[in-house]
Amino acid sequence: MSIDNIMQQAALAFDRYKQVEPVQRAAFLETIAGEINVRREQLVATAGRETNLPDARLNGEINRTTFQLQLFAQLIREGSWVEAVIDRQRETPARADIRRMLLPVGPVVVFGASNFPFAFSTAGGDTVSALAAGATVVVKAHPAHGATSLLMFEAISTAIIKSDMPEHTVQHVTGGNEAGRELVMHPSTTAVGFTGSLAGGKALSAYASQRETPIPVFAEMGSVNPVVFYPEALETRATQLAETFAASVTLGAGQFCTNPGLLLGLEGEAFNRFQTLLHAAIEKTAPQKMLHTGIRHAFLQGRDGMLAQQEVTLIGALPETATAEDAPVAPSLAATTGSAFLANPHLREEVFGPYALLVACRDKTELLQVLKTVKGQLTSSIMATDTDLSNWPDVIALQTTLAGRVILNAAPTGVEVCAAMVHGGPFPATTDARYTSVGTAAIRRWVRPVCFQGFPDQLLPDELKNNNPRGIWRLTDNEFTR
Amino acid sequence: MSIDNIMQQAALAFDRYKQVEPVQRAAFLETIAGEINVRREQLVATAGRETNLPDARLNGEINRTTFQLQLFAQLIREGSWVEAVIDRQRETPARADIRRMLLPVGPVVVFGASNFPFAFSTAGGDTVSALAAGATVVVKAHPAHGATSLLMFEAISTAIIKSDMPEHTVQHVTGGNEAGRELVMHPSTTAVGFTGSLAGGKALSAYASQRETPIPVFAEMGSVNPVVFYPEALETRATQLAETFAASVTLGAGQFCTNPGLLLGLEGEAFNRFQTLLHAAIEKTAPQKMLHTGIRHAFLQGRDGMLAQQEVTLIGALPETATAEDAPVAPSLAATTGSAFLANPHLREEVFGPYALLVACRDKTELLQVLKTVKGQLTSSIMATDTDLSNWPDVIALQTTLAGRVILNAAPTGVEVCAAMVHGGPFPATTDARYTSVGTAAIRRWVRPVCFQGFPDQLLPDELKNNNPRGIWRLTDNEFTR
Repeated sequence: MSIDNIMQQAALAFDRYKQVEPVQRAAFLETIAGEINVRREQLVATAGRETNLPDARLNGEINRTTFQLQLFAQLIREGSWVEAVIDRQRETPARADIRRMLLPVGPVVVFGASNFPFAFSTAGGDTVSALAAGATVVVKAHPAHGATSLLMFEAISTAIIKSDMPEHTVQHVTGGNEAGRELVMHPSTTAVGFTGSLAGGKALSAYASQRETPIPVFAEMGSVNPVVFYPEALETRATQLAETFAASVTLGAGQFCTNPGLLLGLEGEAFNRFQTLLHAAIEKTAPQKMLHTGIRHAFLQGRDGMLAQQEVTLIGALPETATAEDAPVAPSLAATTGSAFLANPHLREEVFGPYALLVACRDKTELLQVLKTVKGQLTSSIMATDTDLSNWPDVIALQTTLAGRVILNAAPTGVEVCAAMVHGGPFPATTDARYTSVGTAAIRRWVRPVCFQGFPDQLLPDELKNNNPRGIWRLTDNEFTR
Repeated sequence: MSIDNIMQQAALAFDRYKQVEPVQRAAFLETIAGEINVRREQLVATAGRETNLPDARLNGEINRTTFQLQLFAQLIREGSWVEAVIDRQRETPARADIRRMLLPVGPVVVFGASNFPFAFSTAGGDTVSALAAGATVVVKAHPAHGATSLLMFEAISTAIIKSDMPEHTVQHVTGGNEAGRELVMHPSTTAVGFTGSLAGGKALSAYASQRETPIPVFAEMGSVNPVVFYPEALETRATQLAETFAASVTLGAGQFCTNPGLLLGLEGEAFNRFQTLLHAAIEKTAPQKMLHTGIRHAFLQGRDGMLAQQEVTLIGALPETATAEDAPVAPSLAATTGSAFLANPHLREEVFGPYALLVACRDKTELLQVLKTVKGQLTSSIMATDTDLSNWPDVIALQTTLAGRVILNAAPTGVEVCAAMVHGGPFPATTDARYTSVGTAAIRRWVRPVCFQGFPDQLLPDELKNNNPRGIWRLTDNEFTR
């Protein structure tokens, strides 16, 4: 079937799906979770073959995926997320009756991510938040795990039938870059969700801006996730920090958006000792297979490109890399100085995989300069004692401006699915720092506010009716009430 | 001073201004309002000379401007607008302490609008909402009312000194398109507010997308604001509707974004009679001077271009237009059929000024088609009785998808400054339908969510501290509390 047909079907399905009651949408999401669990064994086996990820990780990711479905079901059943605002008619000063709420924008295109075959793919966070909002979804399967994607789509399709949702509420497309371009350019597409490379996100954004009617592309792209190791923290708990960060750098073969790729500290014995401890801890981790040969190739090329830069030195010996295309890769650590980092913009770039660059800065001023040169980030982390925190307020203040999430004394990997989460950040971490792709606020990407003026009660959506039949929190005449 | 210097100053001022306590920011906004009132007479006289707008309108607009300042002062004093969300640490299932709130993005560039010398210009809605958010502002004065703008900037500058705000919290720039381009392209600029033409908004958006780091441009551009006159409403109250819309079409010489430029109904006697009544009512209104000769020229050209289209007929005689460059213009009404409208895309375009096109549709199906061909709108209005509403649910459903604001039985001109207002809409009405430029939600254009993970209470912003010192509404562990 052509992409034109698919998008037309998505638009027709939207006309019906947007009218489905929130409680039924919630039940639909829970039914998808159930259908995923029914297929769990097969999903894990298939994804294991396609992605080289171990069973434990894949099972954990399925748990995360079904949890997301349940969380969004709760969100829309509770209902306050629509941000209902009511300004009632009044005589003095005269004002019309004006009410607004968030409504879904229309069909959404979701691009599956290579590094999360479940949680950011076919039934992942983008799809689930869009379905919760009342948008229909066309998923473009990631080519690296097509069979997994198809199996997940089967779970969704079964849930559509069991829940009596409109046909084509979710559709599944395979194909390459040209299919992606067509999906973004189609007039019926109203928004795009993407998790992947900077090049990929920029390409989709460029297509979107070429449309007669531009649409938002929510692309979550690259990040080096800088971590600053403060002096006293390094003095007092270098061993613990080394273990924490060895685990974080190598987690999932380093294939996480929040992988800590840039580790900063002040030059000197404490930082040197941390470097040695970190290297020792990392050397103990077993080499892991990467997701696919393309990513493995890009990682080796990226890492070697970094190691070829002036004043960048490998820590330890370069791990031997087997020649087989799908052989495991060992993590690598490199080191440089603050002045070298400032002089060479290439060192700011991300190497996607198990790699980190340690940067020893001459002093606090240089460390501040280094932080100022990094680009927009998903996360910015602070490893510090109470003394560090009171001694370095200016560095901490700067760190809070770099990213969507600022983390104190924990590794950036591990993104909680919750209401407060911001998995987003200034460009080029994402295309739009005002939104998150993880957590319940992810639903806001697929809606826009619509204002109803002078409508009689019976013609208003339930969320805006006088007697508040859905029992949601609303801002009525500037007071929050329920 | 160069634009580079100005933007650097704005960035330095931002570092300090963003730390100003909300209560002090609120007092600052109220002080601006006071300084505007002190200069009221001079402002009205100057703007009257520069814009041809009558004193009563200008005084009303000053009231709106000072009201906006007070409303945003209340908003930030109350404080809940920051959308604080707190997910506290817990043991089972394990979760870190994660908290988020909205923080200002950085220096904002505001382009003054020609048609609102006060309410959408130097101290208008964009500036005020940005200052309320904690952003610093560089205003680019609209060249058509430069003296008014400078006088308004004097009011703001005095308030900055009296309120002890950082120098350069607001700066004022004059110049042409090149200055505008430089302002948008400057690396320190983080967002742009604009109200004006489609061409202007598209140009600024194009600059923003060429930047190394793209930024959002919130451009409120064109709209024809379709109004559907339903059968029974036309039968029962054509006279009242004609008077309401004669006033709305000619208000401010038609120079409003929400001017009703497209009036739709079913062909037949009732619509003809309405047309006659509307024309008679409009003929009674006095010709008005337009804002400046450029707008006057564009209006006459746009109107004559419409009248030159096939199957578009002028209603009545073409009002005589004096040849003087600043002579008043009389409003014009034109009529066409639904089939002609469908056949000619030019008829969907906006004519900025006192002009409206009546479209007589053969039947409901054709009217639906006409509505489907109009582009994104700021408003979509419905003139209907209860019977109309129950007979035409499909048309009403379609109308609610076209615009940011859907209005029942009132003219679209007159945009309430309140919490529920959406003055925005799908492209090309604005560049971003998810935001509004009028009402308290306008503040969201200048902020992004930032998440703090694992922070001790004393290092958190007040809005996120455990004991809620600001007493704001927060979502804590998924419950709204205060």
